[in-house]
Amino acid sequence: MVINYPNKKKTNKTISYANRGATLEYDINETNEYYLAHNIAVIYKKPIPVQIVTVDYPSRCAAKITEAYYKTPSTTDYNGIYKGRYIDFEVKETANKTFFPVPNIHQHQIDHLLKVEQHGAIAFLIIRFKALNRTFLLFIKDLNHVITSTKTKSIITLEQFEEHAFEIETKFHPRVDYLKVLNETVFA
Amino acid sequence: MVINYPNKKKTNKTISYANRGATLEYDINETNEYYLAHNIAVIYKKPIPVQIVTVDYPSRCAAKITEAYYKTPSTTDYNGIYKGRYIDFEVKETANKTFFPVPNIHQHQIDHLLKVEQHGAIAFLIIRFKALNRTFLLFIKDLNHVITSTKTKSIITLEQFEEHAFEIETKFHPRVDYLKVLNETVFA
Repeated sequence: MVINYPNKKKTNKTISYANRGATLEYDINETNEYYLAHNIAVIYKKPIPVQIVTVDYPSRCAAKITEAYYKTPSTTDYNGIYKGRYIDFEVKETANKTFFPVPNIHQHQIDHLLKVEQHGAIAFLIIRFKALNRTFLLFIKDLNHVITSTKTKSIITLEQFEEHAFEIETKFHPRVDYLKVLNETVFA
Repeated sequence: MVINYPNKKKTNKTISYANRGATLEYDINETNEYYLAHNIAVIYKKPIPVQIVTVDYPSRCAAKITEAYYKTPSTTDYNGIYKGRYIDFEVKETANKTFFPVPNIHQHQIDHLLKVEQHGAIAFLIIRFKALNRTFLLFIKDLNHVITSTKTKSIITLEQFEEHAFEIETKFHPRVDYLKVLNETVFA
């Protein structure tokens, strides 16, 4: 049993937040590095938006941010270019085994994906069911067709993913070859 | 004369850093908001990359970052989509009246622009000579032709900008209509 010293408690919370959803994100980042190293595509994760309040300058060249807060992102986490096309997507994991809760994605991120698609982007979600180790690519244009509204919230069932999304095989290297799905659909 | 209390000194430094290059960046951000509001293009500034070290959770919902550091950006500040094309650029101001010092741009940002251009992006720099209030769009493919190496550093002279770059008129709204240059060149 862990004794909750105030300090220890904080550390625990920090760790839990840092690990939340890290696995799929790690896999996507590794995949993007593979694409970059092999000159296949240039796709980056955007930095986490932070509102910086106070910065200390202990020396001329050093800058230490001492007060800052997380901001709600206005866009998705990932964008870039592949075969001359603008690529934009959001990545989410769920511990659920039968459905994905749509509120896990910010509404303005969905709006952003719909907007860039309207301008000619290839826009999608990559969703992983952690417990099943299954990863799907869902084009944003198909989102409205697959949402089921229950009494309490909007969800997408696993069956809907199986029917309307594209499963991405998890491999060793690259770990989540999502551009393969684009090759077999958009670029087929 | 300002007496340099340790605290006061820090504040001064903070202000000077925050304002450095703020004018052109402000103009570009306002222009991008105009493009977004009029559904012309979807172009965003990426968040400043920050390495977060320590986060305090004073309450369940609040997160206060108490130690973080600036990271060197791996990409440019701006990207997005216009008329189905991936757009990527970096923005810089100079106080100099006769030339722009190339080292003001990180080498890996130049490499990034060259790489995305190779994949089909429209990639460029927007450079403002503050003292002259003149703003130029220089396509990244023209960069190597316009660089002059002096004894001490690489520069681009104002004459080179006048000859090989495209001047952007500064207006009231949008303030820096850089897509007009693309309309008259790439999309002409």
